[in-house]
Amino acid sequence: MTDTLTQTASYTDRHGATHALPDAAGDAQVRADDRAHVFHSWSAQALIDPLPVAAGEGSTFWDYQGNAYLDFSSQLVNLNLGHQHPDLVAAIQQQAGRLATIQPSMASDVRGELARRIAEVAPGDLDKVFFTNGGADANEYAVRMARQVTGRRKVLSMYRSYHGSTATAISLTGDPRRWANEPSDGSVAHFFGPYEYRSAWGSTSPEEETARALAHLEQVIVLEGASTIAAIIIETVVGTNGVLVPPPGYLQGVRELADRYGIVYIADEVMVGFGRIGEWFAVNHFGVTPDLITFAKGVNSGYVPLGGVVISQRIAAHFDTVAFPGGLTYSGHPLACAAGVATFEVFERDGILERVRDLGERVVAPRLAELQEKHPSVGDVRGLGLFWAIELVKDRETREPLVPFNASGAAAAPMAAFAAACKQNGVSPFVHFNRTHVAPPLVITEDELVRGLDVIDEALTVADGYTV
Amino acid sequence: MTDTLTQTASYTDRHGATHALPDAAGDAQVRADDRAHVFHSWSAQALIDPLPVAAGEGSTFWDYQGNAYLDFSSQLVNLNLGHQHPDLVAAIQQQAGRLATIQPSMASDVRGELARRIAEVAPGDLDKVFFTNGGADANEYAVRMARQVTGRRKVLSMYRSYHGSTATAISLTGDPRRWANEPSDGSVAHFFGPYEYRSAWGSTSPEEETARALAHLEQVIVLEGASTIAAIIIETVVGTNGVLVPPPGYLQGVRELADRYGIVYIADEVMVGFGRIGEWFAVNHFGVTPDLITFAKGVNSGYVPLGGVVISQRIAAHFDTVAFPGGLTYSGHPLACAAGVATFEVFERDGILERVRDLGERVVAPRLAELQEKHPSVGDVRGLGLFWAIELVKDRETREPLVPFNASGAAAAPMAAFAAACKQNGVSPFVHFNRTHVAPPLVITEDELVRGLDVIDEALTVADGYTV
Repeated sequence: MTDTLTQTASYTDRHGATHALPDAAGDAQVRADDRAHVFHSWSAQALIDPLPVAAGEGSTFWDYQGNAYLDFSSQLVNLNLGHQHPDLVAAIQQQAGRLATIQPSMASDVRGELARRIAEVAPGDLDKVFFTNGGADANEYAVRMARQVTGRRKVLSMYRSYHGSTATAISLTGDPRRWANEPSDGSVAHFFGPYEYRSAWGSTSPEEETARALAHLEQVIVLEGASTIAAIIIETVVGTNGVLVPPPGYLQGVRELADRYGIVYIADEVMVGFGRIGEWFAVNHFGVTPDLITFAKGVNSGYVPLGGVVISQRIAAHFDTVAFPGGLTYSGHPLACAAGVATFEVFERDGILERVRDLGERVVAPRLAELQEKHPSVGDVRGLGLFWAIELVKDRETREPLVPFNASGAAAAPMAAFAAACKQNGVSPFVHFNRTHVAPPLVITEDELVRGLDVIDEALTVADGYTV
Repeated sequence: MTDTLTQTASYTDRHGATHALPDAAGDAQVRADDRAHVFHSWSAQALIDPLPVAAGEGSTFWDYQGNAYLDFSSQLVNLNLGHQHPDLVAAIQQQAGRLATIQPSMASDVRGELARRIAEVAPGDLDKVFFTNGGADANEYAVRMARQVTGRRKVLSMYRSYHGSTATAISLTGDPRRWANEPSDGSVAHFFGPYEYRSAWGSTSPEEETARALAHLEQVIVLEGASTIAAIIIETVVGTNGVLVPPPGYLQGVRELADRYGIVYIADEVMVGFGRIGEWFAVNHFGVTPDLITFAKGVNSGYVPLGGVVISQRIAAHFDTVAFPGGLTYSGHPLACAAGVATFEVFERDGILERVRDLGERVVAPRLAELQEKHPSVGDVRGLGLFWAIELVKDRETREPLVPFNASGAAAAPMAAFAAACKQNGVSPFVHFNRTHVAPPLVITEDELVRGLDVIDEALTVADGYTV
């Protein structure tokens, strides 16, 4: 650990208030319980060493030794309003005291209010909401709606995508997490999306990438058989697999292909909805209206598990007299919805969307351009709002990734060294394959943002050591 | 509405405290938002009329007119500690103020504590917990673990079962909710479980039913191919599909077959775990140790979405050095876990398991036996703890159900009339096909329980009118 880590028995939040941390001795109990009894996601259980977290506030969390970490991943890109936002905490506490839960078949004030608020900011005629527990089941149910409405079964999704981990969601996923789960939902086919830095078609301009990506998608539709395809599902900005911002015209082209072939267009906005790129829904930025939008995470910053599907009138109407064949005990959970309503109030009162766009354009974009100039390990930078990727390479000429696709262990050492350098300087980074993402809470102060980028700047020097 | 419905602008809870209800005018806003913007589970959206719920306390909830309903279904059989239990509310409020959420890859005090508490009451060497958002994904991940550990794909589950609604979970499900979702996970085969009242094998005693059900299961294993079967999943007491209590020796026999053929035995205790039949886990009552137990609902009464899988040492060890290929953003959510830890404290302090067994044996069992004597519409009664079914028939001799299997609309009118009679007298019943279930909150007072059974007694007179 370097000097930049503060080690104290208390922490001072950004409002200047001091809070005692839990006794450092508590660390041992947390570790003991965790190692003995908690089975962790996506992990070889004996090879992990989960950090006990003692406290969080805004963009920072603390371990039991008082080390502070600036959270540059917003946990799993869900903590849009940061840790312990007072309005969200108050909304949860108040709703818990009023009526913590009520079953889906009854009507609840906060459930209806959140659905109305979401409908108000959703594009086009998407004005009904089916609430779920998270993003994976939101995608499961969106696909189910598309299959019911079209009477078709197949779904097209992108390579380099993540759509969740339950059976259909993991089949939609176009990254290696799918592999160990195959075969699962057999009615999924994958296609290539636009990726200007590593074009599947050798494109040399955004216009060319759009044209070729759309021509490719249409070929896949024709060859898979349009009459068999219920839906196309696309992360509006591809998230964990690269912060791949679609080039101009791409999503409009997808909309047109979907219309031409009678296919439902599902926008997966689990990661990018609710302000991540400076819009309520990312499709609003691109001016397209999908048939279904899935969301989770940012809707209430993950303070209470919540996800859902926003539904167009045409699709909703199909289920006016035909029962929707799906449901779950916690659909429209009041406690979760109360935190969602509070999220709308905070976003509007504090101008969150505007500050995300401002910080992205004024602070992040120019600084990342500067890092790209300065560091030979930086091959590409891209993003929108407070959602950016820095793609690291061994060689800027060949664009060979700094570590191989899906590398782990020794093969991933250069990225591990980069991440360690960030942590040693008090920043908790998001690292995936040969990329680091800049995805801090949307309430991050400008000073914190600059400090985090300074730490990344310094850590990139470590990455530079692995270039040719 | 009859005189037994109280209509007031306030309600008095069972501690004698008076609370104002939200303005009855609020009812219109709740209905408007709900009908315009909320898409409901398992429903034809234009054919439903969800009741706006204004408040809840203990075993009672109130609408905006002040009508009180005694909740004989514990919402969706999740509200084990009733509405607004002060200890659960306090635990949520306190945890919200401490640290609402932290990502699954880090360690959290309440997550570890809840996992330890669950491991302590789980049978055998089941001592690790993978937390999920609810019961459906708990079953998805349990099946995934079994497939990974065995290298086999197929899963056997029962006709007359419910295991959730995501792709694999709905395929496991053995009731009509699966039909509109087929084909989904293709590697599932269904078998018949024991059902003494309607034996698939013409059995005339519990012993015969056990023997024939086990012989049937073994035949299915052999004919499907033991070497292809990863898991057998069974609701320890079948829930929504009938409160089917396994006859003596059946689950031991399943355990033996699973061992003999190298198959993982998954006990689905989403509905019956956490006290519903008077044990932490229902398998404890039957003296069997599955390899995996799935849970949700009662773990924290559904105050915050939570589910999970309790894992044997053998299966957990498989993932010590091999990554488990699954995960979710909200795995081990601190807010949800805090409500789970409080659940353990309340159960132990208030002797919940003991009172469930006592009320079941002393109050419910003899009263249902009396109803069976008295009402020609009652074909069978069965259950354990506070989980009972009354199966209604047109004719006790032929056992013809009062309404056909999966009846809806006019065909289901007799059951609808029964349910309406319950509601008119202030009881919200659980009705499924030709059955009503007695599944009130485990904190129901003896007076409330007797009053609810009185209302069911009266409503059965309505059902009697449809018998031959």
